[in-house]
Amino acid sequence: VRPLNIGIAGLGTVGAGTVRLLQDNAALITARAGRPIRIAAVSARDRARERGLNLSGIVWAHDPQDMIANCDVIVELIGGAEGPARDLVEAALAAGTPVVTANKALLALHGATLAAHGTPLAFEAAVAGGIPAIKTLREGLAANQVTRIAGILNGTCNYILTTMREEGRDFAAVLADAQALGYAEADPAFDIDGVDAAHKLAILAVLAFGHPVDFAAIPVEGIRRVSALDIAFATELGYRIKLLGLAACTPAGVQLRVHPAMVPAASLLAGVEGVFNAVLFEGDAAGPIFLQGRGAGAGPTASAVVADLIDLVRGRHLPIWGQAALTPARAVPLAEHVGAYFLRLMVTDQPGVLADVTSALRDHGISLASMLQHGRKPGEAVPIVLVTHECSDAAIAAALGVIAAQEAVLEAPTLIRIEP
Amino acid sequence: VRPLNIGIAGLGTVGAGTVRLLQDNAALITARAGRPIRIAAVSARDRARERGLNLSGIVWAHDPQDMIANCDVIVELIGGAEGPARDLVEAALAAGTPVVTANKALLALHGATLAAHGTPLAFEAAVAGGIPAIKTLREGLAANQVTRIAGILNGTCNYILTTMREEGRDFAAVLADAQALGYAEADPAFDIDGVDAAHKLAILAVLAFGHPVDFAAIPVEGIRRVSALDIAFATELGYRIKLLGLAACTPAGVQLRVHPAMVPAASLLAGVEGVFNAVLFEGDAAGPIFLQGRGAGAGPTASAVVADLIDLVRGRHLPIWGQAALTPARAVPLAEHVGAYFLRLMVTDQPGVLADVTSALRDHGISLASMLQHGRKPGEAVPIVLVTHECSDAAIAAALGVIAAQEAVLEAPTLIRIEP
Repeated sequence: VRPLNIGIAGLGTVGAGTVRLLQDNAALITARAGRPIRIAAVSARDRARERGLNLSGIVWAHDPQDMIANCDVIVELIGGAEGPARDLVEAALAAGTPVVTANKALLALHGATLAAHGTPLAFEAAVAGGIPAIKTLREGLAANQVTRIAGILNGTCNYILTTMREEGRDFAAVLADAQALGYAEADPAFDIDGVDAAHKLAILAVLAFGHPVDFAAIPVEGIRRVSALDIAFATELGYRIKLLGLAACTPAGVQLRVHPAMVPAASLLAGVEGVFNAVLFEGDAAGPIFLQGRGAGAGPTASAVVADLIDLVRGRHLPIWGQAALTPARAVPLAEHVGAYFLRLMVTDQPGVLADVTSALRDHGISLASMLQHGRKPGEAVPIVLVTHECSDAAIAAALGVIAAQEAVLEAPTLIRIEP
Repeated sequence: VRPLNIGIAGLGTVGAGTVRLLQDNAALITARAGRPIRIAAVSARDRARERGLNLSGIVWAHDPQDMIANCDVIVELIGGAEGPARDLVEAALAAGTPVVTANKALLALHGATLAAHGTPLAFEAAVAGGIPAIKTLREGLAANQVTRIAGILNGTCNYILTTMREEGRDFAAVLADAQALGYAEADPAFDIDGVDAAHKLAILAVLAFGHPVDFAAIPVEGIRRVSALDIAFATELGYRIKLLGLAACTPAGVQLRVHPAMVPAASLLAGVEGVFNAVLFEGDAAGPIFLQGRGAGAGPTASAVVADLIDLVRGRHLPIWGQAALTPARAVPLAEHVGAYFLRLMVTDQPGVLADVTSALRDHGISLASMLQHGRKPGEAVPIVLVTHECSDAAIAAALGVIAAQEAVLEAPTLIRIEP
């Protein structure tokens, strides 16, 4: 039987993991694919680097694009929305060579352009690592109108938030530890500012709803401003703080958002700790489907890459977004979001402060579910926590404008959305 | 575009749900399948029964086998390992007509025979309802050596166990309520005796490990003997009692078992409550993958049936067990299982009883992790709970033989395995 000849571009953590998995589980992969998957060529920036890989019998391509002509499938594991990764994928698809990639940024930003080639492009590894989230959504739930997605899509953020809660420490210290342990990049901005989670959410939302998503228009807030104090208040109120990717499709349109949120401590998403990822899909027929697993790392991501290769060998490929055409839908702005809110103010402990704050909320039609204030320090700064009943983002933003301008309010108020 | 013409046999809960889903989500299903899926014919025992379905334009087949010649795919939703369901599936596969089925008993008992036809046979709906467990295992984790499966695979049992715990009531009373509410069948034996869970576990194990499973040899224990008392003790010890389907593939061979088990209250499986199903797969590359969702009911099961139909329309079908051939493996007997055990004895409260019991355990090399006894009622029956460290099923069974024969031990001891 003729093997499927593949070329792997990029031999970082995921690329090296993919080489190892194809070698270690070769017999099993051949049985499940129906024929062998053979690494014909590899390409990476630095040939001299010691990776602990057995690359004997594999062609080293100095230019990754040189692999296109001689490979049945190109595996792009370089990363990045632009530059060599994009050039390679574009060239392969243009030549009619199928591509497997783990590149979420590329898919989120240029998915429509890439889809136009009509060449198979598989990207299970782009979202939630070893969890078959794309397959579940595009194939397993294909008979469903999916109405909602809620996901913990970035392991770095979830590790930091989990550690902050467990150890009662602040963001900066935990981030530094995470960097030392290899759970966070030297430049962590993509992760901790929510951009990586937004890339993954955008991909899932297009698959789920069948509507295009303008990535630049997604409201994204990361975890830099989450404090140990707010995590402690969340615990006291029966919540956990998680960085969530949220998408909903309603008659009003499609709404995507990425931000820290409070979820009930007994909920499925609250139980997802450390570097784990998870995603909850709500289907009109299937009901809620919850998936949890490792969202990153060599093994889990390679598992997804090779699953895509086996699908391709078996001839199982689909339109990139699961259907031939996407239909435009209105993007619902965050201001129209309706939910409950956690609000923390640092105020001077003096008479009348609470009356002024609650008046501002009342004037914007916002009612309170609960209030927390511990101890009294007359004349000093104390935190006041307010939890609202459901109201709109527009209303709470307007009320906060009034509140923040009050003299007794000492810092910019902290606002965290509460998700059911 | 020519539609895919299907014939649906069986219009019970799942059959009617499948008709409704195909009609309600027709546009979306057509987009995702690439062409329409048309119900050409249906067949059920009682044509006169009012089902609230719109069957206009659909042929009514008095004999379901009459549909084979005129349909592209047969959807078997009759149920049962023998009789009309098996006859229909055999006849369709023999005629080269692909089959979609929700029939776990048929697959678990006759899967090998059915696979021999080489005709596509899809059965996502046979395991865990709306959760794409088959797809996750066979495709999503195709690059992995899966080493372990742990599942809550029967919603009726999980509902009963959850209600027993929440309400502190005994099995018989909760079962009667569940029957009145429609969560348990009038004849509940298949569910509560663990047979249904064993069918599903057998299917998952063959897919995961690539070894054939002798269904008749699987040790199966249901939930009839789980008492409110043991559930209360479990809670006190930090556990939940769940009916688990467990399968493991080790160098010693393949071990399958279905029985009530104690799982740590903070574990993923412990959090699966009510009618929900869940399954945990352990892959060598992907790590643990956990799936949770609705395991039964019209919508979730129809979601899986139609997902299979969409796969067939798209030309995505696989060897039934994910690979061309299964290789035999040793079936590891339950006696070789090694784990911790919860042991409850009803004893006469008199001096020396505990010494006799613990001596018997010591004589079989079993050490204790903890012991519970509440209050004292000299001369009366009191429960004693013992939790062991890891030992073999053979050792604990031998020790229990000695213990049960002691005069002060009043009932057959209760033994529940503890799973990590």
